[in-house]
Amino acid sequence: MVLYLIGLGLHDEKDVTVRGLEAIKGSERVYLEAYTSILGIGKERLEAFYGKDIIVADRDMVETDSDAILKDADKVDVAFLVVGDPFGATTHADLLLRADALSVPYVVVHNASVMNAVGALGLALYNYGQTVSIPFFTDSWRPDSWLERVRENARLGLHTLCLLDIKVKEQSEENLARGRKIYEPPRYMSVPCAISQLLSLLPPSPSPSSPSAPASADALDPSTTLAISASRVGHPSQTFVSGTLSELAELDDDRFGGPLHSFVILGRTFHALERDFARRWAVDKDNWDRVSKEVYGVRD
Amino acid sequence: MVLYLIGLGLHDEKDVTVRGLEAIKGSERVYLEAYTSILGIGKERLEAFYGKDIIVADRDMVETDSDAILKDADKVDVAFLVVGDPFGATTHADLLLRADALSVPYVVVHNASVMNAVGALGLALYNYGQTVSIPFFTDSWRPDSWLERVRENARLGLHTLCLLDIKVKEQSEENLARGRKIYEPPRYMSVPCAISQLLSLLPPSPSPSSPSAPASADALDPSTTLAISASRVGHPSQTFVSGTLSELAELDDDRFGGPLHSFVILGRTFHALERDFARRWAVDKDNWDRVSKEVYGVRD
Repeated sequence: MVLYLIGLGLHDEKDVTVRGLEAIKGSERVYLEAYTSILGIGKERLEAFYGKDIIVADRDMVETDSDAILKDADKVDVAFLVVGDPFGATTHADLLLRADALSVPYVVVHNASVMNAVGALGLALYNYGQTVSIPFFTDSWRPDSWLERVRENARLGLHTLCLLDIKVKEQSEENLARGRKIYEPPRYMSVPCAISQLLSLLPPSPSPSSPSAPASADALDPSTTLAISASRVGHPSQTFVSGTLSELAELDDDRFGGPLHSFVILGRTFHALERDFARRWAVDKDNWDRVSKEVYGVRD
Repeated sequence: MVLYLIGLGLHDEKDVTVRGLEAIKGSERVYLEAYTSILGIGKERLEAFYGKDIIVADRDMVETDSDAILKDADKVDVAFLVVGDPFGATTHADLLLRADALSVPYVVVHNASVMNAVGALGLALYNYGQTVSIPFFTDSWRPDSWLERVRENARLGLHTLCLLDIKVKEQSEENLARGRKIYEPPRYMSVPCAISQLLSLLPPSPSPSSPSAPASADALDPSTTLAISASRVGHPSQTFVSGTLSELAELDDDRFGGPLHSFVILGRTFHALERDFARRWAVDKDNWDRVSKEVYGVRD
């Protein structure tokens, strides 16, 4: 029979495709991959919708015990569910190569992921460069390689989708040291947190009295770099906010909607229709139009 | 009520999501956008599956007569169906801004598109640069701006997803001149056609006797640049082929499966697990491994 790798889409039990739902209902065992992303609902709601028990597969299980997942998959169908698209956050290549080695055929049922649903912001997907993930900084760890990726995109006039860190199933140092499996509450990075981390990596702005040359795109000057935030894309409560990096950094977290947050830093390849589309979510519509015209060179 | 913008996914009537299907069944009118992509099946099969008539909306209708689509959408639900994701090939921003102007709320139901389903090739989506579309060359029109986009990606070590031209509803010059609405059979660009166009834009290779320095990544040397083709991603008959540009250019069209074809030109950010995953589709497995190691620097 076959291993189904099934994308669940972006929010709840109804975002699965008809093809995916049929495959789940016909499967002997159903696993839910629970470490690269989260769904907006609990597994109980999925179980009720499918009429099936679900086995939660954490990273350990997928990476070190894939044979348990693949057990008997040459005789019965097995479904492996992934939030978003099965190849979105990680390719699951290890699991699929193992299936091949065991002569278990696999079938992929694709679905939306944030990588394509971000199109809802109205910027042409063709003009996005590489995607980055922004990790939580700590006192002693401030990784910045992602910032150079943003600059590379900016130099080419391309947009950058920035995905923000989540911390789930983390242990405190004390609990880790004592071997206690007690986990901290989950933490989701907000847009203001991500932008403030970004700004902390930039050189200090010149004082207002110094002669001002127009900043190059890859300087990411916070008052002249546009961005659009997106939370819960595809969910009824999705929230988009557009503005300069400075404007977004100053808003309260809850202005951006519930987690997960992400945002896009706009490259200079930006057109009048895109400006009009995103103006609807602007913190300051006049400033949005002004920066679009004076800095991004958008003409009607 | 509401305008639903619903992605149909990649292949047939079962690739719609459960949420999308419910919205279609509850809609008073159902439009199918029929100019940015094609589904693998006819509209009759969709109509049978939905139990609804479908109105085909061509580019003219969407761009110049959107008020017909939006008619009464403040009183009844209207569904507008798009193959793939609704924001994949074009953002439909005009239609959505018009809905806003008429105070018709809209709801987007996302789905897979080739932009994220290409993840099935096993290359991390984070390492893709901008996507390009390769148009059919004619005797007098050989646009090449897309090639510079590929080079920009290659310089950064990034992969390029190349989408290939389709010609549907085209008229011959004679029929166009005579105002006869007779259309040519559809044409879909094949991977060998696209690669031969690409190679025709490169400078001639140095003769074998000249001293050879290793080619830079953005030279796109056909014997040392790796690529992976993908046809009908998400379809049971999907076909992937991996190899150098030279190897792929020499294969027959039908080796790549049915249309639509696309392919990815690999940047140097390429890892051992990705090499192993794609080796399964290699024209020449030994050469795949050799180029991965000697040119791309892939280490185990």
